Amino acid sequence: MIKAYAAPSAGQPLEPFEYDPGELGDSQVEIAVEYCGICHSDLSMINNEWGFSQYPLVPGHEVVGKVAAVGSSVQGFEVGQRVGLGWHSGYCNHCEHCDDGDHNLCFDAAATIVARHGGFADKVRADATAVVPLPDGVSASTAGPLFCGGITVFNPMVQFGLKPTDKVAVIGIGGLGHMALKFLNAWGCEVTAFTSSEHKRKEALVLGAHHTLNSRDAAEIESATNRFDMIISTVNVKLDWNLYLSTLRARGRLHLVGVTLDPLDLQAFGILGRQLQISGSPVGSPSTISKMLDFAALHQIEPQCEMFPMSQVNDAIAHLESGKANYRIVLVND
Amino acid sequence: MIKAYAAPSAGQPLEPFEYDPGELGDSQVEIAVEYCGICHSDLSMINNEWGFSQYPLVPGHEVVGKVAAVGSSVQGFEVGQRVGLGWHSGYCNHCEHCDDGDHNLCFDAAATIVARHGGFADKVRADATAVVPLPDGVSASTAGPLFCGGITVFNPMVQFGLKPTDKVAVIGIGGLGHMALKFLNAWGCEVTAFTSSEHKRKEALVLGAHHTLNSRDAAEIESATNRFDMIISTVNVKLDWNLYLSTLRARGRLHLVGVTLDPLDLQAFGILGRQLQISGSPVGSPSTISKMLDFAALHQIEPQCEMFPMSQVNDAIAHLESGKANYRIVLVND
Repeated sequence: MIKAYAAPSAGQPLEPFEYDPGELGDSQVEIAVEYCGICHSDLSMINNEWGFSQYPLVPGHEVVGKVAAVGSSVQGFEVGQRVGLGWHSGYCNHCEHCDDGDHNLCFDAAATIVARHGGFADKVRADATAVVPLPDGVSASTAGPLFCGGITVFNPMVQFGLKPTDKVAVIGIGGLGHMALKFLNAWGCEVTAFTSSEHKRKEALVLGAHHTLNSRDAAEIESATNRFDMIISTVNVKLDWNLYLSTLRARGRLHLVGVTLDPLDLQAFGILGRQLQISGSPVGSPSTISKMLDFAALHQIEPQCEMFPMSQVNDAIAHLESGKANYRIVLVND
Repeated sequence: MIKAYAAPSAGQPLEPFEYDPGELGDSQVEIAVEYCGICHSDLSMINNEWGFSQYPLVPGHEVVGKVAAVGSSVQGFEVGQRVGLGWHSGYCNHCEHCDDGDHNLCFDAAATIVARHGGFADKVRADATAVVPLPDGVSASTAGPLFCGGITVFNPMVQFGLKPTDKVAVIGIGGLGHMALKFLNAWGCEVTAFTSSEHKRKEALVLGAHHTLNSRDAAEIESATNRFDMIISTVNVKLDWNLYLSTLRARGRLHLVGVTLDPLDLQAFGILGRQLQISGSPVGSPSTISKMLDFAALHQIEPQCEMFPMSQVNDAIAHLESGKANYRIVLVND
């Protein structure tokens, strides 16, 4: 039996929950969970905001732990090896996107907490192709958030060939944005943080930003006209996107990793005249996660985390919901 | 004196017009105009749709002719050499975009028919950096439209590394779209034409499309879900962009070369989930124009043109405005 914490129905506090995972699949790895980050999408799933939650729902998709068992056909993993697991827990492994190494774009990718049980538990299982070894030099206790929030901001840097000579801005300095500042700084870029919080402006400079701008002050935004090669937006609110487009250099890119349900209302004229690009992306492939972990180890990058015992998961969730998390929350198994 | 045709004020028929161009600038080339295409943006400028027309206005920015004179500092051009001139007639030559070879993104680029006189004339002048030699193998009489309409659809194929194995759709089979079909076919791509005209569906197959779809039939568009790596939209009307996004494969790109003044109303969720890109671009650099001309020569690609004597310019404009041009119109000097 696996001992977990589950939401019995939409929006309810988590409760202790046991389930029998059955026999380990040939291609699966079982991970003994040591740490599991809490991501905003765990809250969205608990609250069924996207309409496809199934209950009882065991959240948790920023898992770090040790391999407890491997299926009969699994190669490359050993019991006791430290690994991580993120949003995806398996792929079809035969579609065009899997074949291209873009497993995160697989149509039949399994999500760790959709129609299966996640990492707020003593153990979790996943297909071996979705499990990524944690390299030496990455701190296990704070690595969990790299597997969802971290890869979400790191992936576009890889996908679009971001250059160290590029000037990059990050909108929103929270769970995702603070990791973006650290990665971009180590990438060699000139980094600007857009935030509406005076307090976070100071913190952003410590986290890796070279400059800060007030994301709610149109005059400050206009002062950055034609400045950035790339903007990574981590926020889930509607902004004046055309104003932000004006801060891009010709050939610049506005990249969205935060989902806003309002239409983007973009003006085509400005996009055409300066060859701008607007894009978005979801998490990253196992290969890109590996690259991120090596990069994090080399540059000693780790998410800034608050730790809670797994048994206090409801307190941890309340803290995240309060907006005061500094910056990510990690649950620790005893 | 240069003998030209000019609109005396917004929306007026063109009239014969002479002007003294003064001494030839050191860096300029004077072109004896043999042929000049008519582009929709000539009409927009005649009608001051963009608000920056100056009158008398001599339209014409799809020029083919022979070098009549070269300025004292010009290198690489000889009198009598056949050349072309497009939307831009000069660049600053020292900004970051010019330095990068992206002269078409230069902030201070001069437009051939903005605050200066264009190619509906016996002669036209331009900075040598904006004049491109016409290679052997490109028919002079039909090459004019390549210098604006042609490069506008060819440029994104170069800019974004379009691969011959990509599947590409073109929205709108008109002046721009018909050239896109020809280029894309020769590029090796599987080409689909979106058009609302039953007549043009048949023509599109002759022009280079392998498939056609009705751009006003939602069910036909939906039948192409997840099909295209790139869509090039040449239309200047509002479409159901989110429906078109659904026809892109993951990592696909919707590229706009037609300007619509309505906001694009894009849904972020679909863009993020499948790593889509939306982009636009204006004409192309001299270097990319040269590449296009070599490609056109090799593959014997030429715009489909109707020829009018320059003296019948107002008839030619009326024909273009009627929407019946098949597909581009070229004015011929006697």
